[in-house]
Amino acid sequence: MVERSVPRVAIVGAGFGGLWTAKALAGKPVEVTLIDKNNYHTFFPLLYQVAAAEVDPGDIVHPVRKILREIKNVRFALAEIQAVDFETRVLDAGDLKIPYDYLVLATGSTVSYFGVPGAEQYTFPLRTMEQAINLRNHILCRFETASFEQDPEVRRRMLTFVIVGGGPTGVEFAGALEELIRGPLVKDFPNLDFSEVSVVLIEGLDRLLTYLPENLSEFTLKRLQKMGVDVRLQTMVNEVFPDGVRLQNGEVISTDTVVWSAGAKGAAVDGWGLPTNRVGQIEVTETLQVNGLPGVYVVGDLASCKIDGEALPMLAPVATQQAETAAENILRQVRGEAPEQFRYTDLGAMTVIGRNAAVANLFGRWTFTGFVAWVMWLGVHLFRLIGFRNRLMVLTNWAWDYLFFERVVRLILP
Amino acid sequence: MVERSVPRVAIVGAGFGGLWTAKALAGKPVEVTLIDKNNYHTFFPLLYQVAAAEVDPGDIVHPVRKILREIKNVRFALAEIQAVDFETRVLDAGDLKIPYDYLVLATGSTVSYFGVPGAEQYTFPLRTMEQAINLRNHILCRFETASFEQDPEVRRRMLTFVIVGGGPTGVEFAGALEELIRGPLVKDFPNLDFSEVSVVLIEGLDRLLTYLPENLSEFTLKRLQKMGVDVRLQTMVNEVFPDGVRLQNGEVISTDTVVWSAGAKGAAVDGWGLPTNRVGQIEVTETLQVNGLPGVYVVGDLASCKIDGEALPMLAPVATQQAETAAENILRQVRGEAPEQFRYTDLGAMTVIGRNAAVANLFGRWTFTGFVAWVMWLGVHLFRLIGFRNRLMVLTNWAWDYLFFERVVRLILP
Repeated sequence: MVERSVPRVAIVGAGFGGLWTAKALAGKPVEVTLIDKNNYHTFFPLLYQVAAAEVDPGDIVHPVRKILREIKNVRFALAEIQAVDFETRVLDAGDLKIPYDYLVLATGSTVSYFGVPGAEQYTFPLRTMEQAINLRNHILCRFETASFEQDPEVRRRMLTFVIVGGGPTGVEFAGALEELIRGPLVKDFPNLDFSEVSVVLIEGLDRLLTYLPENLSEFTLKRLQKMGVDVRLQTMVNEVFPDGVRLQNGEVISTDTVVWSAGAKGAAVDGWGLPTNRVGQIEVTETLQVNGLPGVYVVGDLASCKIDGEALPMLAPVATQQAETAAENILRQVRGEAPEQFRYTDLGAMTVIGRNAAVANLFGRWTFTGFVAWVMWLGVHLFRLIGFRNRLMVLTNWAWDYLFFERVVRLILP
Repeated sequence: MVERSVPRVAIVGAGFGGLWTAKALAGKPVEVTLIDKNNYHTFFPLLYQVAAAEVDPGDIVHPVRKILREIKNVRFALAEIQAVDFETRVLDAGDLKIPYDYLVLATGSTVSYFGVPGAEQYTFPLRTMEQAINLRNHILCRFETASFEQDPEVRRRMLTFVIVGGGPTGVEFAGALEELIRGPLVKDFPNLDFSEVSVVLIEGLDRLLTYLPENLSEFTLKRLQKMGVDVRLQTMVNEVFPDGVRLQNGEVISTDTVVWSAGAKGAAVDGWGLPTNRVGQIEVTETLQVNGLPGVYVVGDLASCKIDGEALPMLAPVATQQAETAAENILRQVRGEAPEQFRYTDLGAMTVIGRNAAVANLFGRWTFTGFVAWVMWLGVHLFRLIGFRNRLMVLTNWAWDYLFFERVVRLILP
């Protein structure tokens, strides 16, 4: 049997997990193929800003080939992996077959509806660029239609926006939407009565942003209420209709727009035939390998990874840290060494509520609120945005917005 | 019979013709409703740059409501006019009915295929934002697919781009595409053999840009050829297939991509029931009114307007000048005066060929080529772009592109 001199690594997914794995393998003695169904990397933490017409889609995505350009041992394939043959080690993307020696699965997560009737058919998820653009178009169209609607009850339904889920996406979107409405849209629609407009944020637990300390949840609640958001805690959605939602207490809210940010599950593909947990994640060993498949790694939202018995959250820093470990472990295996255990460093978390206000928790130790946290959030996110040009563009948009209270990109684009 | 004190003006279309009419009626004693099926104005002269991945879609469109914000007597309606009742003077947009006293039709033009078989099914037009984004995605996908294609003949077909029509759109797009390919794409696809890539520009007449003096056509031809474009003059397309085009001389060019920039016709709607000429335009009097309907005006590409027996070209300056006259004539009618004749001032024309090169003809008298013409073109187009923020963004993109030979936005977006 002849061994290939240069081992082949295939990485499925160009999100934080996949892309950071590829970067960590740059210049190493492996041949890497990075596969994604889009030709760009989406900066997921700012996706809600596209939906709130705050930044252009092009501002928060970056072409994968541009990122990889200087890296000689990584090539890119625009493809969707339908199946994996773990025996012969070949990825199946229709016409294209990609053989590998080591495989990293990093397809991230997708929306989960928890079996709530009507949720899948009648709500707007906010997890991909396409969904963000779709939601933005829908919201702007509600205002256009309402501006010519005579029936006040119909108008109120068109102008009620319900967001289900008080996690980071729900909170950030509620704040951004409220600012879009009370700022530029008030000026754009002089004939509308804006007392008919309402933003409702629904959360099942007794506080928002449960991954943060309680004082930050309290600050967030107060701030959103001050901005005009109708926050309902300990409230469950029982059913979604085309024209409203029914809550567990029997109350029905009439609305054309329900944004679903309540849940996520691992985006494992059925065709892979790997066992998943109840939230669609693939179980990994503490070295991030799949049990029984020592050449297969899983990183990011897709991995069910427990540290001291506690499941890690679906967050970008988890994915990028796992990517480093997976890359390192592959190189160890190539050298004939044993893979090492994944260790997670909690850097903290931050969430923006609106203009000049955010909450931040650093290293699980220090908490910040308000303007200071907002400036920290701005700095960290601009720093993390890939590509200098993107940073420049987003900063220009934000500065404009900040100076003129103006959403610059509220276009209903195809 | 009671006369309304404030006459109502309805304008259909928010392109150069419609928007400039609305602006000319700002603050005048009329109530204006501007209607468009998009909530934004598209800066048509730069649409080809979206298709060549040179600017973001958001850079060349501007929300209509933002433009109209300071204008109290103009309201906007997002709607599509299906029919007009010229008797009762009501526009029919489905649920929405818009009564008017004066009507301005300004729906512009649409693509014309001259009955060439297969052209409608298998070519890419370049006349709307949706079409521009669609074409950009298609071109970038050809490179992605070709990078994994083993058959050289199939690869060559994927990498051949045929543009039909040597008018401004065809010439500008050919130049921009050649630069996209020879610049960023060469770097993005290190494994592709770029001698397999070709851009073919087909023109039926014996020179490009026939509305310009001959020396400018000659300069344009030389420049495009130097850039690598395969220009075929006096060449007609007989048929288009899914995988190629057949020319009149019998030659077949294998290609997945045929861009159709050969013809335009007025975008008159059948439901209006107005007679049109052979290129779909509505005949107007020399005061821009429709014969027999003194309250109805037509401006821009949709109007068949002859000056000294010669038809005016479909160009933005014609539309904006006609808009001024139509607005003025409506105000004259309101005051009980007779409408005045439209007079056209030919300001000249300019077309950009590529990086640092353009051709310009001012007032039909002075011609410029090369870098000087390019700087003039840049200045005029930035000046004409609506909205300071858009100018800033486009300039930043261009400067980046110019400094780094980099197309910044080559994303295959939904």
